[in-house]
Amino acid sequence: MITGFYPGNIRLYEVALTHKSASVALPDGSSINNERLEYLGDAVLGAIIADYLYQRFPNNDEGFLTQLRSKIVKRKQLNKLAYKIGMSPLLILNTRQNQYKENIHGNAFEALIGAVYLDKGYYKTRKFVIRKILEKHLDLDKLARKESDFKSRIIEWAQKHKKEISFVTEEGQESQNEQMFVSRVIMMNEELGKGKGHSKKDAEQKAAEKALEKITG
Amino acid sequence: MITGFYPGNIRLYEVALTHKSASVALPDGSSINNERLEYLGDAVLGAIIADYLYQRFPNNDEGFLTQLRSKIVKRKQLNKLAYKIGMSPLLILNTRQNQYKENIHGNAFEALIGAVYLDKGYYKTRKFVIRKILEKHLDLDKLARKESDFKSRIIEWAQKHKKEISFVTEEGQESQNEQMFVSRVIMMNEELGKGKGHSKKDAEQKAAEKALEKITG
Repeated sequence: MITGFYPGNIRLYEVALTHKSASVALPDGSSINNERLEYLGDAVLGAIIADYLYQRFPNNDEGFLTQLRSKIVKRKQLNKLAYKIGMSPLLILNTRQNQYKENIHGNAFEALIGAVYLDKGYYKTRKFVIRKILEKHLDLDKLARKESDFKSRIIEWAQKHKKEISFVTEEGQESQNEQMFVSRVIMMNEELGKGKGHSKKDAEQKAAEKALEKITG
Repeated sequence: MITGFYPGNIRLYEVALTHKSASVALPDGSSINNERLEYLGDAVLGAIIADYLYQRFPNNDEGFLTQLRSKIVKRKQLNKLAYKIGMSPLLILNTRQNQYKENIHGNAFEALIGAVYLDKGYYKTRKFVIRKILEKHLDLDKLARKESDFKSRIIEWAQKHKKEISFVTEEGQESQNEQMFVSRVIMMNEELGKGKGHSKKDAEQKAAEKALEKITG
């Protein structure tokens, strides 16, 4: 068994593996699939990882911790983890959609966490996530170093390819209390990417990320 | 004591109450304030509420659960809760900023959850959140009914004030795989609000929310 322990309520795990394309219809018009468990698992996984990083990096600030956590729980990463822990072949699907584009695996991975949580409780889920996932399949130090510093990366790219790029940032009000920045990456009068954020740095990072996606396809 | 139990590690609670304006500087250049605990508490609170709503509303779908959860954990609501449970006067601050605008109270509230979690563990924190907060200070059924249906509300407002408003929505690509909708609420050629979302409905709701903020100040 993937989780390393015997399931108590096997039904929960079946539901966790059931994509909405293979929903089981109930007489009352509702249907059973893994979406509710995904909602629950997403939150539980967030707490477990927040806790783990808090303990593991006692000297880093909350900005670092938040960023590292979002690198771990992003869909692409969760899709990969679903595959690595061997749950992908177990999914119950009825769709011709591109499973990876649709994040079907990553979502089911979260649903599995939700099922483990309901079946075994928070601390067993935590142990499962830490031992079988974080410590087994992820290199956190490497992930932390792999700065999502998209701005530096696109500037490097431009230098290498002898292109001139510039960042143009406007400041505005999102609402009464919130400032908002919109940043654009411009190359030869063409907008490569646009990003919005509560700080200039954040907006630039997002714009650079978009621009990198565009360039590298 | 606010939490209803004796603290084990009192130091944690002091940190939870310390706003960054009153940070304690450490010899190594870093400083102690409640921001790391806020990061942790935010995630733990999210999991506890996700679980509680999952159990409490067994027949509602994940869209309903997600929406209700975000109504509970939004800053304005957390600011109020901090006040209601009596922690606001205990905050350690050194600022003339508007405390409510800055969400200082809501953030400290999350930090308190982080402190309780580290001090007492997940299940005691869960009990504290459910008994002393969710069941004591929030009417979830009322909150659930209070549909954030901003579109209906602004249409009602317009009818009442005999104004004509319209929603204009554009569809675009956010990235290769993601569709993006941008919606605008227009009144007499003036843009009252703009919203972005992965569905037309979502974009319209956000635009309507902005427009309502603008109108009602």
